[in-house]
Parts: sequence; structure tokens; C-alpha cells
Amino acid sequence: MQAHELTAIAPQHPPALADLRVDGPRLWDSLMQLAKIGGTPKGGVCRLALTELDREGRDLFVAWAKEIGCTIRVDAIGNIFARRAGLRDDLPPVMTGSHIDTQPTGGKFDGNYGVLAGLEVLRTLAAANVYTDAPLEVVVWTNEEGSRFVPVMMGSGVFSGAFTLEHALAQRDREGIAVSDALAAIGYNGAEMVAPHAVGAYFEAHIEQGPVLEANETTIGVVQGALGQRWYDVTVHGMEAHAGPTPMELRRDALLVAADLIHAVNRIALDHAPHGHGTVGWVDVHPNSRNVIPGRVTLTVDLRAADDASLSAMDAALRDACAQAGAKKSMTIDVEQVVYFAPQPFEPSMVAAVRQGADALGLSSMDVISGAGHDAVYVARVAPAAMIFVPCKDGISHNEIEDARADHLEAGCNVLLQAMLRAAQAVEGAAS
Amino acid sequence: MQAHELTAIAPQHPPALADLRVDGPRLWDSLMQLAKIGGTPKGGVCRLALTELDREGRDLFVAWAKEIGCTIRVDAIGNIFARRAGLRDDLPPVMTGSHIDTQPTGGKFDGNYGVLAGLEVLRTLAAANVYTDAPLEVVVWTNEEGSRFVPVMMGSGVFSGAFTLEHALAQRDREGIAVSDALAAIGYNGAEMVAPHAVGAYFEAHIEQGPVLEANETTIGVVQGALGQRWYDVTVHGMEAHAGPTPMELRRDALLVAADLIHAVNRIALDHAPHGHGTVGWVDVHPNSRNVIPGRVTLTVDLRAADDASLSAMDAALRDACAQAGAKKSMTIDVEQVVYFAPQPFEPSMVAAVRQGADALGLSSMDVISGAGHDAVYVARVAPAAMIFVPCKDGISHNEIEDARADHLEAGCNVLLQAMLRAAQAVEGAAS
Repeated sequence: MQAHELTAIAPQHPPALADLRVDGPRLWDSLMQLAKIGGTPKGGVCRLALTELDREGRDLFVAWAKEIGCTIRVDAIGNIFARRAGLRDDLPPVMTGSHIDTQPTGGKFDGNYGVLAGLEVLRTLAAANVYTDAPLEVVVWTNEEGSRFVPVMMGSGVFSGAFTLEHALAQRDREGIAVSDALAAIGYNGAEMVAPHAVGAYFEAHIEQGPVLEANETTIGVVQGALGQRWYDVTVHGMEAHAGPTPMELRRDALLVAADLIHAVNRIALDHAPHGHGTVGWVDVHPNSRNVIPGRVTLTVDLRAADDASLSAMDAALRDACAQAGAKKSMTIDVEQVVYFAPQPFEPSMVAAVRQGADALGLSSMDVISGAGHDAVYVARVAPAAMIFVPCKDGISHNEIEDARADHLEAGCNVLLQAMLRAAQAVEGAAS
Repeated sequence: MQAHELTAIAPQHPPALADLRVDGPRLWDSLMQLAKIGGTPKGGVCRLALTELDREGRDLFVAWAKEIGCTIRVDAIGNIFARRAGLRDDLPPVMTGSHIDTQPTGGKFDGNYGVLAGLEVLRTLAAANVYTDAPLEVVVWTNEEGSRFVPVMMGSGVFSGAFTLEHALAQRDREGIAVSDALAAIGYNGAEMVAPHAVGAYFEAHIEQGPVLEANETTIGVVQGALGQRWYDVTVHGMEAHAGPTPMELRRDALLVAADLIHAVNRIALDHAPHGHGTVGWVDVHPNSRNVIPGRVTLTVDLRAADDASLSAMDAALRDACAQAGAKKSMTIDVEQVVYFAPQPFEPSMVAAVRQGADALGLSSMDVISGAGHDAVYVARVAPAAMIFVPCKDGISHNEIEDARADHLEAGCNVLLQAMLRAAQAVEGAAS
């Protein structure tokens, strides 16, 4: 709970602004225009972080933001802050945003929606001559996807202190190009030191990237927080041998034990319903030859849960399953945790602002939890934050066929507008 | 059952020859000398079929065979037949042999032992001035391993009519070089048409390439035949989705179903003990990403059994398991059989000759079945055939650390000597 929260969240909403609405077609047109930069023949977008295409996308956003009078700041990791002045610029800004870098076979909406929904909110306020007490900022976070440079969520990670600026700048892509050089090459290596400047509130609108809203025919996902994650590399050490001459009883088949573990991961997740997730997504079989009994299998395990107690219990269950499976077949199983993200609940008053916005607009909504990481999850470490999900077709994302309905995108943007107005204490026509 | 069998197998063994023994150290020295050609730093051998190193190995064998008076014929697929004349050259030859090509990371004994054990038998007979009624032949089959050119067991396959000479000659390696050109390049493209010239009997000595003899502390494996094999490609079609936002109950995880199938293959094999074998050796997960639920998994299945009824029952059980697993999770599972080798029992009188040889020598022996393919399995289609297995260390083969004991190799060679003498009706000092 941050000290500046109480000043940022207005207890009451100016009734005169309750009818304010974003321009859905304008939002859609902007999404389609941005999607042309790096657009693929299949209708997706390939706009990797800190490439020339990323620069073009950033330039377009900056031009649009300047058109409505925003000032632009770029920090040392390339995050862009487009600021609309408030009546009281001593207040911490109410911020929204997301990212415009994409996966290699990404879609038009992941990230881009959050940025352009924020822009649309500012355009709407500008057109309606509405000013807020607190300044408003739309931020474009650098390299959320991590497709070209790891770690993922790089810009928001530096901003929130998850890792250092120096660490991020030193990362290199597969061709050996450093983040620092790539930033300079596209002209987005801001001089400003990255510092988590006080943020009154942070909202992020995003497509759900999952099937829950669609399955429930619900327009707005009121995001409670993000699942914690533990990722592992698990290696089963058996003994490779010829499939023909080796009797079943003398085998030490690492894949057979790996199959036990795949089932165990699934069972562990089901034991921690509804928020427990367990996935084996990657498998490497050695020597991976049709007629050779696998001697070594490495697999990844991805466990997620809504709270740390559950995540720890799942961790213990995984280690127990590995120990039992190894002991049963006299095999060594190495379990190495390679990633840990703590569960991140969002600020209850912020979550309430999203829900109230949906209710006020007469939109169907439901509480959801984000299974994936988002910039908001990092920002929530240093500011009161919340997210607004809208459905995407078949829950598909990170895919060129990623799709979302214009009316859903507009609805989510209206919720964002209402939530930001509430947080920033808007006053109609209070300044010119 | 071949018509010439009864003339080739002598009902009684000349007692005077029962004490004849091979020269174990000479056999070992020859193995070590041949292993230098293509020898690797780790003590293995890399001598791929129809390479310059293969030519060197062939030349060494041919020189050794000529030293003891053999005549050499090379057929059109490059098989080398080194023939020691019999007293009655109208009789079909008693043949032995194997191959000298190796895997890329092969050992000193696989194949090479069978060839040099045959040579040692002929050297022993030459030194002892023993002649046989039937001529004797030691054959070097071309490209048994299939590492450079497929199909495997190419020379014996053409000889036995498993596929045509034209088919074999037209095969190309990864660099596009045809078998016909590779044969010509090393000078082993014989003019003689390949024809399964009548073979009175065929014995092949080989390291077991499995752990059974060693586990049973037994010196001689009396090989009853070879398991039949059915190989499959099985593909599970699920739906890829993000591991984070996709709840467990909405997943269509292809790897989870693949794990069911890995277990099913193991169970099917155990249900057909002792000779049923079932192996999943190769797995391909799509997209194989740590935080993506697998949308498609392809795996290979290798089923083996001693008789066709069992193999058919295992085939039905596999298809049933796939149908059930698919139906349970509403996924499509494709099952395609890609290879079929019929079970190949060896000729009982030939098998008996091996067992009697071991018994006469006071060697421990046990009935075994070959789980893998060998040249003898093809030759058995056109001639009475049998195999003699000797232990190899830890059952390991197709590996540079492949190892075998000199006393075991000598013992197996003595069994081969006795069996060949029995089949060829040897007469001590009958000719000069």
C-alpha cells in the first residue's frame, strides 16, 4: 500500500462525467493503423522490440500523443511516458499503458490495445475538454515480450526495480546486439534516469489471452492479481539401450518416468483448483532415436498458483513426485527451479474501481486472475495497480490469428476511462 | 525349410575334430588391427559404409583371406565372399560372416567380430590341414548399419531378395552420393550379379548388444530367431494455448495424452512377456515452449514380438489404446505403421548345431532371441541360418565404449568352428 494512494483515488465520481464515452471506431482505426507496421500476410504483426519497426510504431504513438498536447519523456530503458498535464501537477500521475513490441508471430492486440486504449482515453478527454486533478500518463513499456531480448517485461521490470538498468542494457540478442546499442540505434535511449517516479495509480487494459471470458460470455474481466509462478528444469537420468535386445525388465527408460512426471504435474495442478496451473511444455529426449530406449529426458515444469502457500505446496508435491518416481525406478531425477515470480495481488481499491466502472456502464463482468505476466504485475510492486481484461477470440494470443471484437475493445476502453477519471479526480471543463 | 538343408548338416561329427580350437589371441589381434581403421580417440570405430575407411577395412580382410588361399568374389552390391574350397565343390557352401561398417560412434566388435570369427575358423582349419566336404565362405555384407545409406542390412537384404539391387544402388547419402557411385569409388562394385547362390548353411557370430547373457553369467547365447517388429508414427492433435491464462479444465494438452500412450506401450509389452517389447524412443513436442500447452505431439512406437500372433495382438492393443486416449480427451490421434519385419525363427537343426557346439565345449549357454535385426535374419529367408551370441560389457553397443571379453569372443568362435564343421562334414587331412 503506497502512501500516495489516498490522494490519487477519488472517493466520489463527478456525476457529470459518467456519460463520457470513448470513440470506439477511432480506437479500432488506430489499432489497425499501428498493426500495419510489421504486419504479416496472415494478418498478424511481427514487430520485435527495438527494431526499426518498433521505432516506426513508437514514432506513430509519439506523434499521436503530441497531437493532443502530451509531453513526451523517454527514460534510459526506452520506456515512453506521454503526459497530459493535470490541474495539480504536484500530484503523482494516474498512469495507463502496455507495450507495442510483439512476438515473432504476434497479433494486433496483445499490448497494443493497452497503449492505444490509453491514448483513446486521453483523446476523449481532450475532445470533451475534461481535465483531471492528477496528471495522466500513457506509457509504452520497452520489450514486454522478451522475444528478442530477455528478460521479458524489461521496461516495467527496470521501472519497478525487479532488476537493474545496467543488467537490462547489457542483454544481447542472438546476433550479439546489446539492448543499449539497439536503443541508441532507434533513438529511444532516453537520457532520463529510470526511476519509479511516484505513480498515483496504474491501470492496464489487455486482451485476456485466455478462454475464460469468452466461455462465460462476459465482456469485462476484473483482474484480481496475477498467479505466482515457479518454473523448473527436470532431468531424468536413465540408461539408453537398444530397443530390440533389451528386455523390458532390464530397462531404465527415462521417458517412462518422464510420463509419470507429466501426469504428476497435471494432478498437482488439479489438487490446487481453481487457480493451480501445471504445464509441461518442453521435452527433450536423448538420444531421441526410434529404436533406442531413452537414456535421458529433460522436461520443463511450469507451476502457477494464486498465493504463495499454494505455490509452495505445489513445489513440495512436485519434488515429492520426482523423488518417488526416481526411487521406484532407481533413477536420478534432478529438479532445478529456474524462475520464480511471486503471486501479485492487485490493490483492492483499484480492482474495485474497475468493477465499479463496468457496473456503471452496464457491462457484464467477472473476477478473473491473470495467469500470465504483464507489465502491470511489475508496476504493482511500486504503485497501486489493476488490470482490465476483454475477451479475445478462442482465447488465442501470441498468434497471427489473434482476434478481438471491436465492441469488446471499446467496452474495455470505457471502463479504463471511468477508472482513470475516478482515480484522477476529473473536473469537467476545469481548464482550457 | 530349404531343400539343401539335409545335405549340409552332417548327422554326426568326426570325433577327431572335436578337440580343434581357434587361436583366441590371433582373433583378438585381428579385431584390434581392423579397429585401427577408423579408430576414434575414445576407443571406438567410425567406419561408415562405402567410405575410404570401409575400403581399407575390406582390403585388409581380403588380404588376410587370400593369405590362407581363399578366392574372392564381390557381387554387385559389394558383398565380399571369401571362399575356401571344399572336397566337393558341387555342394552349397557353408557360410558365415557379418559386416565391418560401423555406426558413426560405433565399437570394435559389432559386425567385425562375426567377420573375423569366420576368418579365424578358416585360419584354424588351414593351420590344422582340415578340409570340409562343402566349401566354406566368409562373407562381408555391405552396409548393415544403415548409418550412411538406408535401408539397413542392405547387402544381405539384396542377397535374400528383401528388396531389389536397383533399389539399393539408387539410394543416396545426405550429400547426394548414390550407393552405386560410392561402390565404384572404393572399387567394390562387383560385376557378378547378385543372386542368392545356394547356401548350405549360414552361421553368424555376434556380440549380444543386450544385457541378458551378462545378467545370467552365460557365455553362449543360442539364438532361436529374431523378433518381429512393427514401427509406428503416432501423432496426438490437441490445441496449443498459453500455460498461464488457460484453466486446467479448458485445456487440450497433447502431451498429457502422449504420456498416457507412453504408459500404454509399456503395458502392452508387459502383457506379452517375455518376448514382447515396446519402446517410445522419439518424441516431438509442438511448439515445445516452456509456457505453452503442447498442441501437437508426435511419438514413435516400436513393438516387437516373437510370433506374428503376438505382434498382431500388440498392434490391436496399441490402436485400441490410442482410440481410447483420444476419445477420453476429444483429441484426434493418428496411428501410422511405417515398418514391418516379420518374426524370423531360425532353422531348428541349425540352432541345435550351435547348442551342441556349446555343450561339447563345456560352455554355459542359454536360449535367447534376437531383439534386433542382423544380416542372418535376412539370410534366414533363403537358407538355413542360426546365430551365436556372446556377451558384451553392460549390454552396450553402437557406442564407442562397446566392449567384450577376449575369452568370450574366443568361446563363441570355437562354437562357430564346431557348428561349421558339423554342417560341412569336415574330414581331417583329407586334402592338401
